[in-house]
Amino acid sequence: MPKGEKLLAKQIYAWGFRAIKSLLPGLFAAFAVSAAVIAPAGNKPHLLAEAPIEPRVHEEVISTKKVFKLDEIREHGPDSDRPWIIKGNKVYDITEWIECHPGGKVILRAAGSAVEPYWDIFSIHKKEDVYRILEQYLIGHVDPSDLVDGEVPKSSIEDPFANDPARDPSLVTLTDRPCNAESPLSELTSFITKTAVFYVRHHFWVPSVGKDSYKMTIDIGDGSDGKTYTLDDLRSKFPQHTITATLQCSGNRRAHMNEGSGRDTSGLKWGAGAISNAEWRGPLLRDVLKDAGLDIARPPEELQHVEFFGEDTYSTSVPLDKVLDPRQDVLLACEMNREVISPDHGYPVRVLVPGSTAARSVKWVNRISILEEESQSQWQQRDYKGFGPNEMRETVDWDNAPCIQDTPVQSAITGIRSDKDTDGLNSIVLEGYAFSGGGRKVVRVDISLDNGQTWSQAKLMPDIPKGHKAWSWSLWTYQCPRPPAGSYVVVKAVDEAYNSQPDSHGPIWNFRGVLANAWHRVRIDSIIQNDNI
Amino acid sequence: MPKGEKLLAKQIYAWGFRAIKSLLPGLFAAFAVSAAVIAPAGNKPHLLAEAPIEPRVHEEVISTKKVFKLDEIREHGPDSDRPWIIKGNKVYDITEWIECHPGGKVILRAAGSAVEPYWDIFSIHKKEDVYRILEQYLIGHVDPSDLVDGEVPKSSIEDPFANDPARDPSLVTLTDRPCNAESPLSELTSFITKTAVFYVRHHFWVPSVGKDSYKMTIDIGDGSDGKTYTLDDLRSKFPQHTITATLQCSGNRRAHMNEGSGRDTSGLKWGAGAISNAEWRGPLLRDVLKDAGLDIARPPEELQHVEFFGEDTYSTSVPLDKVLDPRQDVLLACEMNREVISPDHGYPVRVLVPGSTAARSVKWVNRISILEEESQSQWQQRDYKGFGPNEMRETVDWDNAPCIQDTPVQSAITGIRSDKDTDGLNSIVLEGYAFSGGGRKVVRVDISLDNGQTWSQAKLMPDIPKGHKAWSWSLWTYQCPRPPAGSYVVVKAVDEAYNSQPDSHGPIWNFRGVLANAWHRVRIDSIIQNDNI
Repeated sequence: MPKGEKLLAKQIYAWGFRAIKSLLPGLFAAFAVSAAVIAPAGNKPHLLAEAPIEPRVHEEVISTKKVFKLDEIREHGPDSDRPWIIKGNKVYDITEWIECHPGGKVILRAAGSAVEPYWDIFSIHKKEDVYRILEQYLIGHVDPSDLVDGEVPKSSIEDPFANDPARDPSLVTLTDRPCNAESPLSELTSFITKTAVFYVRHHFWVPSVGKDSYKMTIDIGDGSDGKTYTLDDLRSKFPQHTITATLQCSGNRRAHMNEGSGRDTSGLKWGAGAISNAEWRGPLLRDVLKDAGLDIARPPEELQHVEFFGEDTYSTSVPLDKVLDPRQDVLLACEMNREVISPDHGYPVRVLVPGSTAARSVKWVNRISILEEESQSQWQQRDYKGFGPNEMRETVDWDNAPCIQDTPVQSAITGIRSDKDTDGLNSIVLEGYAFSGGGRKVVRVDISLDNGQTWSQAKLMPDIPKGHKAWSWSLWTYQCPRPPAGSYVVVKAVDEAYNSQPDSHGPIWNFRGVLANAWHRVRIDSIIQNDNI
Repeated sequence: MPKGEKLLAKQIYAWGFRAIKSLLPGLFAAFAVSAAVIAPAGNKPHLLAEAPIEPRVHEEVISTKKVFKLDEIREHGPDSDRPWIIKGNKVYDITEWIECHPGGKVILRAAGSAVEPYWDIFSIHKKEDVYRILEQYLIGHVDPSDLVDGEVPKSSIEDPFANDPARDPSLVTLTDRPCNAESPLSELTSFITKTAVFYVRHHFWVPSVGKDSYKMTIDIGDGSDGKTYTLDDLRSKFPQHTITATLQCSGNRRAHMNEGSGRDTSGLKWGAGAISNAEWRGPLLRDVLKDAGLDIARPPEELQHVEFFGEDTYSTSVPLDKVLDPRQDVLLACEMNREVISPDHGYPVRVLVPGSTAARSVKWVNRISILEEESQSQWQQRDYKGFGPNEMRETVDWDNAPCIQDTPVQSAITGIRSDKDTDGLNSIVLEGYAFSGGGRKVVRVDISLDNGQTWSQAKLMPDIPKGHKAWSWSLWTYQCPRPPAGSYVVVKAVDEAYNSQPDSHGPIWNFRGVLANAWHRVRIDSIIQNDNI
């Protein structure tokens, strides 16, 4: 579409959007919120750019006095012609709603059973407006004899997390369902993080994807038919590349930001363990895009973004430039630390966008689209954006805030242990990591034992990075006489662009609590132990 | 040379270097210092990697009692068979020394006249060791009847700066010879800086290069014959590209670092005006390298750096990757702001390495070499490196400190003016710039009126950048009620990698005073005026 027409279309859309908004405030709110919050799966990559969808009223009038046995309801599952769901003790036929559901077909996950476990994850549904929509699809009630204390018994509700793998008990779990867990800091002292203790950051359940049934579709531009690849295609038809790359959650060190600024933020209170480093192997995404028909030397000018869709309904995009530059090493990773990728980290295939915030490295990827605009998903348009310390959720200009891709220079102390130095005197050894986004190498790590008044340099550990740029963290150590109890030790790093970390968290505080990268300060207590960090 | 052999050669060199050092401490010091400080011109790009050069004793023995008329000395100028120089009232025949001179043939600039004006620039010569070397070439004295008060009269000494152009009187001059001058802050409020007030940072005089005599040679690897281009070749044989790009001196805001940290640094005390933005036009360097015979798709693996030599004897290098990536827009700029480049900015051709510190954008470029190692010049190995706040010149590990290429996020206030707001109340308008290296766009500028306690956002001005990345600064304005006299207004910027400026200069202080990018704080006095900044 030529630029002029596109702008016109946007204007018309905006006008229509406002008109409908003024006519149907309640209904609009429900849809707008759902559209914004739930990522479109399947064929709806541009949800926010579409007019709100009106629900169709189902034609068949069924007495809402009807009662159904749980066994009968279970037959109206994901694959049935008329999927039903239960909420409370009410039964709804959602057949006509599926097409209109802003979140796409993910709603079918609940079909044949209770919707509550899913609404506990997609909590935005717990609103009067959403309840009103659902009520239109009421067809009856659960047979009271099937209820226990008036509710559907838990044993008959399918657990969306039933497929989640067993996990290493040393992971520091913040939430279990979905799993969000830090790597234990004691494990972050080797260049490669073992897969079992690599930090886990999930938005939903772990999807079950079979090695043989796995398929990934690539669309070049809207309306393309797409080309589909099996896992075997990805492994055998393209050269395989190996890189080492650090993934870091945008919320890493959020707890430090909250504490340092004295101001609360939204989001899980990650410490310094929402970061890990692994070796990844698979085809370059650019090679696969070329095979799928994209002219990678001269891509159509209007195609600027690559959107990744995960089997778990998550989606997000990165600039096409990043993917097409062979020195950016963007992979479809099929191996992690020389084994098949574990279920928690995207089995069988995840995108690996080195140097970008980990939110762009989509796990369980099953669809990739080359598009004119960036992803309209929640995770592109809302969750992973930074703001000024004065800007608040209610008033912020979401559209003009850029989503986080490349990330700033970062460092943290991961260990403090007592040691004897060569004179047999009491000394301590500090350990930690330093990392910068965009492949910018860490060139110096500064340590202060007096809360930032004077500094000296940590020793950067030798490492064996793979890839065209510095995609991996640098680990460091620092030995010094034991400072008095009550002292603060501080670390800050400098990357090759000579970016340095800000001194304090207050001035970079943001209500999302993202990109907390001020100096890491740790108080030395009378007993030195890693748990104090 | 295979990696193994290269390492071996380095080892042998290091051994030889140490052996000679222990045998000839005085002599070594003279050469080592000169070699480190004066860039090799012509064919000596790898000076520091060569064994120290021993001076040859001249064969012809001349009585040092001899006296020479100034007219006779003048005939031993740069083009003569036996060039002479004067120092004090002594005359030296430097013919045999030229080949050994660590600075190369630039020594001929002084031939036929006094060397002092050059040693005032290359002040490292003013050492006993250097005097001792020179003394070996003594051939006599200036005829006392030609001296005035015992010295060569100034009128008969050629002024190395005679060719320097007239300059706009509004430039804020820090040194005149060589010229180092800031743009007046009042001129930094338009997206494109006018050429006449674009900041000037020279290491030497402005060389005189004729449009028709201009030639540039490109060598691919050591020992290549090179291919030579005229200005007309560069303009007519290659597609011409236009970009807008900000150049910033590594020492910009050094005065702020000195003041903010309370610690002095070396280097000129630049304020916030060692930065400007212009439109540049010329061929992509990669296109010219391709024409010169480099396989730009698959360059030989060992060739990693591109060294640029300026007519003024300056030289430095950038990574070859940067030059070969078409999205990095590295130009041989032949135009600045739609006119031929002015003499002060590199006439007729300068390199333009957008997103890198300005020291890499070599003016009056006449030779480009593709090499295995980075430039061994002073400006690569010494002047433009950053260090920790505790590291001092005497003890620093020069070799392991990376030279500055890409630069960190930066901002400054360039104007504070009184204004009336819409209610007719007293308000002020702040103006300034924000910029980040590596093509990273500025995404937000935060302003505090209470010295960093609370913040709000400046308005980013619309601009019309050209080029593949954000090579140009963002200008901003901020209007607010007039704060009480004695308040501090503060600016800090955030780039697209969400790098933010450090809060204070103390912790990023370095003895070179480079990359001063802490928050810019300006005290509001009772009278608002730009001069206060």
